[in-house]
Amino acid sequence: MYRIAVLPGDGIGKEVTKGAVNILQAIGDRFGHTFHFSYGLIGGEAIDREGTPLPEQTLHLCKQSDAVLLGAVGGPKWDNNPPHVRPEKGLLQIRKEMNLFANIRPVTFYESLAASSPLKPHVIEGADFVIVRELTGGLYFGKPSERRIEKGEEAVVDTLFYKRAEIERIITFAFTLAQKRKKKVTSVDKANVLESSRMWREVAEQVAKRFPDVQLEHMLVDNAAMQLVRSPKQFDVIVTENMFGDILSDEASMLTGSLGMLPSASLSVDGPALYEPIHGSAPDIAGQNKANPLATILSAAMMLRLSFGLTEEADIVERAVKQVLDAGYRTADIAKHGDCVLSTTEMVEKVKDAI
Amino acid sequence: MYRIAVLPGDGIGKEVTKGAVNILQAIGDRFGHTFHFSYGLIGGEAIDREGTPLPEQTLHLCKQSDAVLLGAVGGPKWDNNPPHVRPEKGLLQIRKEMNLFANIRPVTFYESLAASSPLKPHVIEGADFVIVRELTGGLYFGKPSERRIEKGEEAVVDTLFYKRAEIERIITFAFTLAQKRKKKVTSVDKANVLESSRMWREVAEQVAKRFPDVQLEHMLVDNAAMQLVRSPKQFDVIVTENMFGDILSDEASMLTGSLGMLPSASLSVDGPALYEPIHGSAPDIAGQNKANPLATILSAAMMLRLSFGLTEEADIVERAVKQVLDAGYRTADIAKHGDCVLSTTEMVEKVKDAI
Ligand SMILES: CC(C)[C@H](C(=O)O)[C@@H](O)C(=O)O
Ligand SMILES: CC(C)[C@H](C(=O)O)[C@@H](O)C(=O)O
Repeated sequence: MYRIAVLPGDGIGKEVTKGAVNILQAIGDRFGHTFHFSYGLIGGEAIDREGTPLPEQTLHLCKQSDAVLLGAVGGPKWDNNPPHVRPEKGLLQIRKEMNLFANIRPVTFYESLAASSPLKPHVIEGADFVIVRELTGGLYFGKPSERRIEKGEEAVVDTLFYKRAEIERIITFAFTLAQKRKKKVTSVDKANVLESSRMWREVAEQVAKRFPDVQLEHMLVDNAAMQLVRSPKQFDVIVTENMFGDILSDEASMLTGSLGMLPSASLSVDGPALYEPIHGSAPDIAGQNKANPLATILSAAMMLRLSFGLTEEADIVERAVKQVLDAGYRTADIAKHGDCVLSTTEMVEKVKDAI
Repeated sequence: MYRIAVLPGDGIGKEVTKGAVNILQAIGDRFGHTFHFSYGLIGGEAIDREGTPLPEQTLHLCKQSDAVLLGAVGGPKWDNNPPHVRPEKGLLQIRKEMNLFANIRPVTFYESLAASSPLKPHVIEGADFVIVRELTGGLYFGKPSERRIEKGEEAVVDTLFYKRAEIERIITFAFTLAQKRKKKVTSVDKANVLESSRMWREVAEQVAKRFPDVQLEHMLVDNAAMQLVRSPKQFDVIVTENMFGDILSDEASMLTGSLGMLPSASLSVDGPALYEPIHGSAPDIAGQNKANPLATILSAAMMLRLSFGLTEEADIVERAVKQVLDAGYRTADIAKHGDCVLSTTEMVEKVKDAI
C-alpha cells in the first residue's frame, strides 16, 4: 500500500489534484496496487479555516505519508495579508520542514504542441532538459530579512546564505541525475559578482572530479537566461541556487508552449517527496472545469517513478498523455483554432481511457 | 565642445568603440559640433598595465568628461584572477564611483532582423520596451559578502541591501520615462518572498500616486521571466532591482535576435553618464574585424540624445542604422544565408555614408 497525502490548495488546485488522483486509481486498478489518499489543508484555504497557511496537522500527515501531491496555493483574496499568513508561506514552510532540498523540473518538448510555443520550431524541437533547483536555502530563508535604520535612513536587507554542505548536496544530486541522462551538467551562478557563487563554482569543480563521465560547464545566470531562449537544446541538466532556479525554471517552462503541461518533484534526503504542477492556482478560471490537469497527472507519474519505483506504471501514464495530445485533444490553455477543446474532467477521462 | 571619455576595454571593445567614435566625428562634421575624445584604461588591459581594473586616472578622466563611451571588459586571460583584480570589478567600481544608478536598456525590434529572432514573428513584431535596472545597490554591493564558519560548518553569505531612497530614486526615474512613452510601468519584484521586494512594492505604490497618468503594474520576477518570452509586446517600461535586472535584461536582449544591436545608458543624478553596448568582449572574435559595431554606435546615439540633448543628431544616427539594415547589410552575427556580410569597418562606413 502506498500512502499519498493530497494537498489540493487553492484555485484550480482542487480540480487538477482530483484528476491526478483519478489517474492514480486507474493505475492501481490495472496493476493491483493500493493507493491510499489522505487530504490536508494548505495555503489560502488553510488560512481561512485554521488561521495558518501550513497547519501542524497537514505537516504531520505529509511526514507520515510515502509521498505528497500538491495542487497550487495562492489567490487575490490573500494578497494583502502580512507575510506570515500568506498562502505561499505554507509552501515555503513545507519545503523547509520536509527538507525538500532538490526541486526537479523536466522541460519536455511535445511535438504536437509546437504551435503553442512562442519559439520557432527549429529552436525548440527536440529540447529535453531538467532544471535542478536548490529549494531550501539562499535568499528564501537567509537571515536577516528585515527593515532597519542605517545611518538615520530607512533601509531593508535580505540575506543569501548557504552552507557548503548544502551546495555540495544539490550539485551531487545534479551529477547523479546527469549520469542517467546525456551526461552534461550546466552549473549556473553569478561568480563574477557573488561570493556565494564563487563557493558554488568551487564545489561544482570538486564534485565533478567524482563523476569523470559527466561534463561540467559553468554559465553565468544572465547568460543562462539568454541561452535558454537562444538555444535550449544545448542543455541536459541545469543546476542552480534557489532564486536563480525560480527565475530560470519559469522562463524555461514557457519555451515549449506548455506551461499547463509541466510537472515537478521536490525531493528530500530520505523523507517523502512532494509532487506538484509548476503552474499556479489560476484564480481566474478556478471552479470552471477548464484547467489543464496534465501537469498534475505528469507529476503523479513522477511520483510513481521516483517515490515508488513503479517505472512501468509511470511510463504508461506519460505515454497516455502523449497519445491523448497526439490525438488532438486539448484543454483551452493549449488549444489552437480548430482544436477540439475539452474540460478538465473530459481530459482526465481521455487519459484514463488511454491507460 | 563635448568631452567624451572613451574606455575601449578588452576583446572587441577596441574595434566597436573605434567605429562609434568614427560616427560621432561624422556627426560633428555635419553639424559643426566638436567632440573631444580622451582614452582611458579599464578591465583586463588596465590590470595588465596598471595592476588594477579601474586606475585612478581613468576614474578622474571620466568624472571630468561630459559622457563616457565604454566598449566591453573581460576575457579568459583574467578569469581565474582573485575577485578584486578581475575586469568586471572595474565595471562595478565605475558604476559605484560615478553613481550610475539607472541602467536603461531599450529593446527594439528591427523588422529586417526578424529572421534572426528565436521567437515567432507574431510574438515579437512591434515589441518596444525599456528595461530600467537599478545599478548601484542590491546583491552587487551589499555587505557582508563573505565566507564564514557557522556552527562549525563552512558557509557563505551575500547581502541584498537597499536604502528606501535608492528604491524611490529608480522607480521615480522609471515613471518619468514612462510618461514620455506608453505610460505603463511594470515593477518587477519577488514580494512573496523578499522583504526588500515588499518595500520595493510599497515605494512603487507611493511613487505611482505622483504620476496619475501612468499605469503601474506589479509582476513577480519569475512571472516576468515567463512573460518576456510569452508576450513581450505587453511591456512599456520595466523597472527592477540590480540582479533581477541583470537577468531579465539579458533574457530580453535575446528576443529580437539582435544582441549585437542593443545599446545601453547608465545615468547618474547629476554627473556624466556612461554608454555601452550590452554585448560582452567576445574574445573569440576579437581583433578579427568581425564584430558588430551597431550596438556601440546606437549607444553613441543615446549619448547624443540623453547627455548632450542633440535629438536631431541622435535621430539621424538611428535612422542611418535602420537604413543600412533595410538595405540588407549585415555583420556575421546577424547574417542569414544569402546576406552580404560586412566587416566591422565596412559596416561603420555604410552607416557613415547613410549619415
Ligand atoms: C509561490 C512562490 C513562493 C514559489 C517560489 O518562489 O519558490 C513559486 O514561484 C515556485 O517556483 O514554486
Ligand atoms: C560583467 C558583469 C559584472 C555585469 C553585471 O552583472 O552587471 C554585466 O553582466 C552587465 O549586465 O553589465
